[in-house]
Amino acid sequence: MKIGVIGGGQLGRMLALAGTPLGLEFAFLDPAPDACAQALGKHILADYNDQTALRQLANEVDVVTFEFESVPADTVAFLAQFVPVYPNAEALRIARDRWFEKSMFRELGIPTPEFADIQSQADLDDAVARIGLPAVMKTRTLGYDGKGQKVLRAPDDVAGAFAELGSVPCILEGFVPFSGEVSLIAVRARDGETRFYPLVHNTHENGILKLSVASTAHPLQAQAEAYVGKVLDQLDYVGVMAFEFFEVDGGLKANEIAPRVHNSGHWTIEGSECSQFENHLRAIAGLPLGSTATLGEAAMLNFIGEVPDASQVTAIAQCHLHHYGKAFKAGRKVGHATLRCEDMATLKARIAEVEALIKD
Amino acid sequence: MKIGVIGGGQLGRMLALAGTPLGLEFAFLDPAPDACAQALGKHILADYNDQTALRQLANEVDVVTFEFESVPADTVAFLAQFVPVYPNAEALRIARDRWFEKSMFRELGIPTPEFADIQSQADLDDAVARIGLPAVMKTRTLGYDGKGQKVLRAPDDVAGAFAELGSVPCILEGFVPFSGEVSLIAVRARDGETRFYPLVHNTHENGILKLSVASTAHPLQAQAEAYVGKVLDQLDYVGVMAFEFFEVDGGLKANEIAPRVHNSGHWTIEGSECSQFENHLRAIAGLPLGSTATLGEAAMLNFIGEVPDASQVTAIAQCHLHHYGKAFKAGRKVGHATLRCEDMATLKARIAEVEALIKD
Repeated sequence: MKIGVIGGGQLGRMLALAGTPLGLEFAFLDPAPDACAQALGKHILADYNDQTALRQLANEVDVVTFEFESVPADTVAFLAQFVPVYPNAEALRIARDRWFEKSMFRELGIPTPEFADIQSQADLDDAVARIGLPAVMKTRTLGYDGKGQKVLRAPDDVAGAFAELGSVPCILEGFVPFSGEVSLIAVRARDGETRFYPLVHNTHENGILKLSVASTAHPLQAQAEAYVGKVLDQLDYVGVMAFEFFEVDGGLKANEIAPRVHNSGHWTIEGSECSQFENHLRAIAGLPLGSTATLGEAAMLNFIGEVPDASQVTAIAQCHLHHYGKAFKAGRKVGHATLRCEDMATLKARIAEVEALIKD
Repeated sequence: MKIGVIGGGQLGRMLALAGTPLGLEFAFLDPAPDACAQALGKHILADYNDQTALRQLANEVDVVTFEFESVPADTVAFLAQFVPVYPNAEALRIARDRWFEKSMFRELGIPTPEFADIQSQADLDDAVARIGLPAVMKTRTLGYDGKGQKVLRAPDDVAGAFAELGSVPCILEGFVPFSGEVSLIAVRARDGETRFYPLVHNTHENGILKLSVASTAHPLQAQAEAYVGKVLDQLDYVGVMAFEFFEVDGGLKANEIAPRVHNSGHWTIEGSECSQFENHLRAIAGLPLGSTATLGEAAMLNFIGEVPDASQVTAIAQCHLHHYGKAFKAGRKVGHATLRCEDMATLKARIAEVEALIKD
C-alpha cells in the first residue's frame, strides 16, 4: 500500500519512518525542493493546488493524508474524487477555521474560553466590550506557532488591530487564567474504534512548543477523553487528532484541534507501545489500532533553530535524537529529543541535561 | 554525515531507519535493481567490484560499512584508500573464512568444536579419522543460512564430499551435542569502549533462523562477554558484531562471528534502549554508544517466504511488524515480528500467536 502525504516536512518524515516497517510506501507532495521527507519516499515537487500534480499523486497512492491543516479546501475536494482522503474534508474545514472549531466545541457542550467572530474593527470593538480585556485576537485561518495573533491588553491595543492582522476574518478569545496547557492525542479507526494517549503537559516559549511531558494518571484524563471522543465521532474522523486544552480551575477549556499527528505527541515514538505516527497510518490504512500504553515516563524537547551537536545529545542516557535533516534557521523546528525513564525524578534530571545543550 | 553501505537489503534498510533520526544520510551499493533499502537512500546500482561505482560511493560518503561479510577483499582494500571502512579489512578477512575464524578462536583460548582445514578429499578422510563422525563439512567462505554445508553421518557421506561441495577449501567441524544455540550481539566504539546485549536463544529450521528470544540473567552472559571482548579487541573492531555459540554441558563453544548487524539482534529495535542498528551507526560515526539495556522480555520471529497479512500481525498485542518490502520467495527472509512483553509467560503466549500466522 502506498500513502500520499500532502506536505513533506518532519511530520511526513516521521510518518514514513513509522510506516516503512509496516510495508507501506510513501509519496510526498511539497513545493519545497528541500522537503526533508524526500529521503524516505517519492517527492512530487509542486504547489498544493497544482491539479496535474494532485492527479499524479492520486494515481500513485491508495490513500492520501495531510501534514498540516491549512491545506486548501479545493485540494482536498479534488483529491477526494479519486482516492480516499483521511481525515475527511469536513474535519479539515472545521480544523482550519478557529470560528468553526470553537462553534463546534460549543455545540458539543465542550467548555471553551469566551469567543466572538470578528469581521471588522466594529465587530472587534463590540466583542471587546462584551468579553473584556485582556483577550487574544487570532486570524480564523492559517495561524500556527504564535503567528497570526495579537494579545490585546489595553484599549490602545484594540485600536486598529483588525487592520494590523490583515483585515481578514478573525476570532476574539477571552483571556483564560490557565494553570497549564495540556493536549490529548487520540486516534480513531475507520470502524470508529478510538484510543487515547495520556494527557501531555506542554510548555511554550514565544508561541512555539518547547517541552511536552506525558502525564500518568492525570485527574482530567477521563474528562479530556470524553470531550475528544465527541469531536471525533461528530466528524466521523479517521486518523490521529491532537486536541489542546487549557487547565483552568481544575477543569479543561478547549483551545484548538490539529487534525494530524502533532508535535506534542512526538514522545510516543519511544514512549508508547505504538507511536502516534504508526497509529495514524494504521487508522488510515484500515489496520487494527495499536496500543497507546506508555513505556515509563516520557518527555519531548524541541530543538528550535538548530540541533545541538549529535555527540552531546546521544551522550545523554535515555535520550533519543530526532534530527529532521532540515537547514537550520532561527525559529524553525529542526529536531527534537525524546526521553523515556523509569521514574519522574530521573526524567526531570534528563530534561535538565537536554535543556543545558539548548542555546538561548 | 553520509553513510555508505555495501549491500542494500533489509539490514541496510533497518540501518537507515535507525540512522535517519540521527541526521545521517545513506547510499547503498547493490547490484539488485529491487534492493529494498533504496526507499531510504541513494541506490548505486553496480557490482561489488565495480571500481567506478566504488569510487563514486567513496566520494559521496564519510564512512563505509557492510551488510554482509562475504564482500570481496579487493572491494574493501579499494574503498579503504579513500574513506574509513568499518569494520576493518582484517575483521572481514577473518570473518569471511571459517578456517581463519576458528583458528583465531583457538589462539585466543575460546573453546570451539574440533575442526580441521580441508583442501582435498585426502584431507577430509584424514580429518574424519581424527575427529570422528558425525561431523559437519562447510565451505570456508560464502556459506550462510545452511548453504555450502553438509552433515557427514556415515562413511558413505564422506566419500566424494569434497567434490560435492565444489572442490573448494572447506573446514570439517566435529559434531557438538549442544543443548542450545545462543548469540551475543556486541558493539565496540572507535575508542575501544565495548557494550553487550543479553545473550539470545536462537532456534533454526532448515538452517535458517526462525526464532530469537532474548534472555535475562543468562548464567553464561559473563563468559560470553569475555570471549567476545577478546575477539573485538584482537581485531580492533568498530561496529556491531554477532557471535554465535553452542551451549554444551553448561559451557559455550564458539561457532562463528558475523561482522555486522545480525538477524538474532533484530529484537533490539523495540526490546532495547538503543538498537543494534543505531549502535552500529553510533560506533562507525564516532558517536557515544547507546545503552544496551532491555525494555522487558523480547523475542523475534522471522517471516520466511512471505509476510502474513499485515492486519493479522498488527492485531496481535505487543507485536511490531517489520516488512522488508521484498518480493516474496520461498526460503527468503522477507520480514520479522518483534515482541516486547512485561514477563516471560506473556511473551511465550504472544510467540504462539505469531507462530499461528506462519504457514508451514
